[in-house]
Amino acid sequence: MDAARARQDTLTKPRGSLGRLEALSVQLAGIFGDPRPRIRHKVIVTMAGDHGVVAEGVSAYPQAVTAQMMDNFLRGGAAINVLARHVGARVVIVDMGVAADVDPHPDLVVKKVARGTSNLARGPAMTRQQASRALMAGAEVVGAELAQGLDVLGVGEMGIGNTTPAAAIAAALIGCPAAEVVGRGTGVDDAGLGRKVMAVENALSVNQPDPADALDVLTKVGGFEIGGIAGAMLAAAAHRRPVMVDGFISTAAAMIAVGLVPEMKSYLVAAHRSQEHGHGRMLEWLGLEPLLELDMRLGEGTGAALGMSLVETACKILDEMATFGEAGIAGKAG
Amino acid sequence: MDAARARQDTLTKPRGSLGRLEALSVQLAGIFGDPRPRIRHKVIVTMAGDHGVVAEGVSAYPQAVTAQMMDNFLRGGAAINVLARHVGARVVIVDMGVAADVDPHPDLVVKKVARGTSNLARGPAMTRQQASRALMAGAEVVGAELAQGLDVLGVGEMGIGNTTPAAAIAAALIGCPAAEVVGRGTGVDDAGLGRKVMAVENALSVNQPDPADALDVLTKVGGFEIGGIAGAMLAAAAHRRPVMVDGFISTAAAMIAVGLVPEMKSYLVAAHRSQEHGHGRMLEWLGLEPLLELDMRLGEGTGAALGMSLVETACKILDEMATFGEAGIAGKAG
Repeated sequence: MDAARARQDTLTKPRGSLGRLEALSVQLAGIFGDPRPRIRHKVIVTMAGDHGVVAEGVSAYPQAVTAQMMDNFLRGGAAINVLARHVGARVVIVDMGVAADVDPHPDLVVKKVARGTSNLARGPAMTRQQASRALMAGAEVVGAELAQGLDVLGVGEMGIGNTTPAAAIAAALIGCPAAEVVGRGTGVDDAGLGRKVMAVENALSVNQPDPADALDVLTKVGGFEIGGIAGAMLAAAAHRRPVMVDGFISTAAAMIAVGLVPEMKSYLVAAHRSQEHGHGRMLEWLGLEPLLELDMRLGEGTGAALGMSLVETACKILDEMATFGEAGIAGKAG
Repeated sequence: MDAARARQDTLTKPRGSLGRLEALSVQLAGIFGDPRPRIRHKVIVTMAGDHGVVAEGVSAYPQAVTAQMMDNFLRGGAAINVLARHVGARVVIVDMGVAADVDPHPDLVVKKVARGTSNLARGPAMTRQQASRALMAGAEVVGAELAQGLDVLGVGEMGIGNTTPAAAIAAALIGCPAAEVVGRGTGVDDAGLGRKVMAVENALSVNQPDPADALDVLTKVGGFEIGGIAGAMLAAAAHRRPVMVDGFISTAAAMIAVGLVPEMKSYLVAAHRSQEHGHGRMLEWLGLEPLLELDMRLGEGTGAALGMSLVETACKILDEMATFGEAGIAGKAG
């Protein structure tokens, strides 16, 4: 990191004039253990799962949409496909626990823990064993991708109802009232928002997740795709790869990952601040300052895709710019 | 624009969930007069000029750096080269008025109005005829690029001392004290900042630029590259092409362009909010909300390059995503 910082100060620009791109390049040098890291392989892992809590009327869309959107991902028609193509990233779609049979597809990775979680407003979302399996499955997915080349991991998700477990995780770990982290998700009305707040409050009082035990939080109020993302993040960090955090749900997964292994926090880069109420609060808890703020609230990894492009930019600035000496340019006067 | 907005609402995502990218796509549809515009050719025009006001000690770098940096641009070692390559844009370097002989280069466009402006703190920066020539030259550059293909224009600049004329333009058009729009530029110390404020105050009191006459403002307190950028912007807008505004100096040029032709404002997209003090105030005057805020303050078109990638993304979202109907996905419940 010192070598990267020193090099930034010799490049043909006023010191610090590329702002956050310079700071990001220094963080990336630290992550890779390389003063001039290069980003070749960008991978977005989009994990899908269903949620028993939809029985509480917490989503504006029917549960069948989770599986239908996976099909859309695999056919290349979703926002994440468009954005990943734009930034040159490959997308890996993972069934972590969709409540339907998904047709086999060469680009689909099946790690189904179960056909959707149980209703967390009435009891634990999953067993502790299932939570562990979700984490392990996420790590396995990243392991397989590392073998093919992975220089930066972006995460994303799809799961009708999943802003509810994400909010429950946030409330449990931050220790704040449900209303402070529950938002409108895909666009519920005021009544739906009230049902979400109630579902999260019930989840916390019925399950009493232990904030000092992130696996307990994942078990009681989490989701399979959230566990999978947390495991993927941990595996990437363990292999010294940066992790682009996407939006509200991915940030809840990051909170689980950091709860399990606090040291992994320095491997995280927050892509954007979502429009979803509560996301800013979660990023603060993680100590992350997002790169973008574009009023997005889609998930899938869409924010991560845009953020990855900035990670690549930061590395290229550090690696490709000429120094004052190389360019024969006069330094600062006086 | 109505057709683009209607299409956005049929794409496989919750309505509005891509936030500013959706709004941007609608603006672009209006600019192109096409409900599904496609961005093929991205061009960044980086204009260079020198400034007599450097005699007042307003810059941390010597004037020779302007010509040296042009050489760096032409050899591909500057930040704008790295960022333009990253986003797939071609860079056009224009000598609008560098105070040195610049060696001929196949990629250099020479439109030199004069070898630097006069010292605006002591009298007009240029003649009214020179200001007109700068505007025309900028328009000619864009005309030539349109013939080769130009779907989005990014602008940028290089010119030691040019935050001083940019601040003077802002103060003249906004009608605010110099101190509210003068910043540290490439990094002057407190004494240098005091000299810049004094130079801008003197420029306004000596020259009395007429805020109702943007050509008068450009003449008295502008710069050749600033005039060139304003002309380039007007030409792009006249050909229904979007213009990515870069940082502090490019925004001063946008203020001149809008002062001359108020209708061109709807063709502008603000790439980023610069760290340079006063930039936010200028964007407000223009009614522009920047896409990015990365604490950058380099100029050259670096912010515009990053912003262009978002313009392309917005168009691809509108053009390439599947609709709910095409993907056979259930709509919103209830």
